Amino acid sequence: MDEMHKPSRRAFLRGSAAAAAGSIAGAASAQTADPLITDVQDWASITGVGVDETPYGLPIEYESHVVRRNVEWLTASPISSINFTPIHALEGTITPQGCAFERHHSGAIEMKKDDYRLMINGLVDKPLVFTYADLERFPRENHVYFCECAANTGMEWAGAQLNGVQFTHGMIHNMEYTGVPLRALLNEAGLGAAGDLKDKWVYVEGADASSNGRSIPMEKALDDVLVAFKANGEALRMEHGYPVRLVVPGWEGNMWVKWIRRIEVSDAATESREETSKYTDVMEDGTARKWTWVMDAKSVITSPSPQMPIEHGKGPLVISGLAWSGHGQITRVDVSRDGGITWEPARLGKQGDTKALTRFYLDVDWDGAPMLLQARAMDETGYVQPTKEQLRDARGENSVYHNNCIQTWYVNAEGIAENVEVS
Amino acid sequence: MDEMHKPSRRAFLRGSAAAAAGSIAGAASAQTADPLITDVQDWASITGVGVDETPYGLPIEYESHVVRRNVEWLTASPISSINFTPIHALEGTITPQGCAFERHHSGAIEMKKDDYRLMINGLVDKPLVFTYADLERFPRENHVYFCECAANTGMEWAGAQLNGVQFTHGMIHNMEYTGVPLRALLNEAGLGAAGDLKDKWVYVEGADASSNGRSIPMEKALDDVLVAFKANGEALRMEHGYPVRLVVPGWEGNMWVKWIRRIEVSDAATESREETSKYTDVMEDGTARKWTWVMDAKSVITSPSPQMPIEHGKGPLVISGLAWSGHGQITRVDVSRDGGITWEPARLGKQGDTKALTRFYLDVDWDGAPMLLQARAMDETGYVQPTKEQLRDARGENSVYHNNCIQTWYVNAEGIAENVEVS
Repeated sequence: MDEMHKPSRRAFLRGSAAAAAGSIAGAASAQTADPLITDVQDWASITGVGVDETPYGLPIEYESHVVRRNVEWLTASPISSINFTPIHALEGTITPQGCAFERHHSGAIEMKKDDYRLMINGLVDKPLVFTYADLERFPRENHVYFCECAANTGMEWAGAQLNGVQFTHGMIHNMEYTGVPLRALLNEAGLGAAGDLKDKWVYVEGADASSNGRSIPMEKALDDVLVAFKANGEALRMEHGYPVRLVVPGWEGNMWVKWIRRIEVSDAATESREETSKYTDVMEDGTARKWTWVMDAKSVITSPSPQMPIEHGKGPLVISGLAWSGHGQITRVDVSRDGGITWEPARLGKQGDTKALTRFYLDVDWDGAPMLLQARAMDETGYVQPTKEQLRDARGENSVYHNNCIQTWYVNAEGIAENVEVS
Repeated sequence: MDEMHKPSRRAFLRGSAAAAAGSIAGAASAQTADPLITDVQDWASITGVGVDETPYGLPIEYESHVVRRNVEWLTASPISSINFTPIHALEGTITPQGCAFERHHSGAIEMKKDDYRLMINGLVDKPLVFTYADLERFPRENHVYFCECAANTGMEWAGAQLNGVQFTHGMIHNMEYTGVPLRALLNEAGLGAAGDLKDKWVYVEGADASSNGRSIPMEKALDDVLVAFKANGEALRMEHGYPVRLVVPGWEGNMWVKWIRRIEVSDAATESREETSKYTDVMEDGTARKWTWVMDAKSVITSPSPQMPIEHGKGPLVISGLAWSGHGQITRVDVSRDGGITWEPARLGKQGDTKALTRFYLDVDWDGAPMLLQARAMDETGYVQPTKEQLRDARGENSVYHNNCIQTWYVNAEGIAENVEVS
């Protein structure tokens, strides 16, 4: 398939016309003498597993392939590295904590709730230190938000590289967070000392060795940032920042500081190591674009995809995918089966929350002809997800971060999918 | 505290007046020389756990108490038994699969997707057998729904018995399901043979030894019932029916048949063992009330509660709880701190989905006086959750199922909570 890595739309259309003669098969059929339905099975003749055997349950052994995975060559060390959510095998919108991607700058740390402290200092009326129990006394909110690493899809700038949606788009997860608005804690410390808040910042850092310090404009800090202690109802897992992490809705994941230990109100950005050595975008002319916090609208088809071939042949096919925008709600997703020549509006599984994953579907009858599958998201601001060409025209090819371009999967007549670019 | 098991409201009010003189303490305070904030901690001096160590993550060891638990005396065998969701320790609305309550009639069974079959037979034009792959070809939907066992709170009919919200109200969970509407599968088989659908039924049974067969009126089967294969994004866990279970929104959990193997269209209810020996309500006069499928509006305060004492003394206190209704959306929850004499409207954490858990909060300044905490839910039909007295007046005390009465926690001046009744 190497010659298909950059299929032209013209050649693709020629191929499609020849193959588009299949009939639409029904999805179910009456079967005769299938022993799995006619015979009494072993599992109907036993007493099964009792309720006292698994106080905390894990996925069944047959799903052991649905796990976080890393790409060994991608970073020097698994301690300062990333792994990827198995989004190819997930459905709906919620990501279980157990398989939600991880990114640490110096590894995940283990801290007891009793040892947790959060300091607010700098330009505040009264510097404060909060214990975990203190945080539990402030009014709480619940919100579902996506968290996307700025480097998600970052290996795809130069060409179609990683052959699986888990690896091209899996640095994302979507959970229901419970926490205290950062605004409430800042107001408790008092912002009078900061004067005019318009140009003020907060500098946030974690308790791990990297500290992963980042600067956040005061306007965002007072808007929807949460100091969160639960995800999907239960305590944050160690790898997600137990006992407390920052949730910065719609903004790049590296600002969602885990094991959050200090928030300093200041009159300038800190320009920390993490926001100068990383998380800036090198443009075509070598200059750097910085403070690119918001994750723009993006979408991707999760099935079919390279890890999720079509195994049932022609006939009814569910094309399933995810869309999200750091600017608010997803209002529309279109799907193309011919590499962007024609588009069909997708069905949204459920109107998504703001700054949260939205599931979309296109239900089709597949004629067995090869497809160049693409999805294109639109958000409430009217922004439309760009093609790879459009993104390269604007940003060049020196970037790692903020690649939100339209992804293409080539699906052949056997249903095998491959990561490709169209020209 | 035995004498407080049935505290009168009058005596309670006398007690409160005397104790209501405490000052409101701030939730956070500046601290000097707290080594946890001033000293470099061990976890800031190490490289932590890398991303390759936990392909599938589990809760941190410090949360090992947040697990499903059973009550040993409650049923004869852990195989035909139940355990309880640790709702006292959860927040928000989503229940992780790993700690969502289980109820099996003959234990959880292990079945591969490839071995899965679902038969639709009876009054259909064309009996069909679906494989798992067949189900994946039908248009999917995503919905968050609560699932409550009919017996939830069943041990509380005669008096305040189990001293923990996990045990009084923990036979409930709330997940995001992905599945195919049952309607689509019935239509695939064709309902022409059934004639007038008004009085028709489906009989649903599971692949386990108990089969747990139940009859569902056709009207419900064609409404919002899902044949579901994912919960919270990932495959159903074994104990939740892997690979496929029925989701019957708003209706009692025993109808959500796990390992669903057969759906028969019929012109009468089957009156199976599970709907005659169980899941009917014995009234005061000895007659039985049957077909009581819908779970009426209900709410409970999860914290403070017997497993969640107030440990920080007077001052700001977050009262947190859950509300739900099988008839649709929760529109309002009121909280009482004096055993139902006066009520305050609670803040809904987020407008809940229909037939899904809604989180509510009352943020108060606790004066340190004892409280008789109650919550009262209202749903979109105008229905108001009844008191225990009202429920007993209507139903007597012979029932096990469908106890949706208002729950009372007595919280003493030390913040210790206890399951009580008020008279």
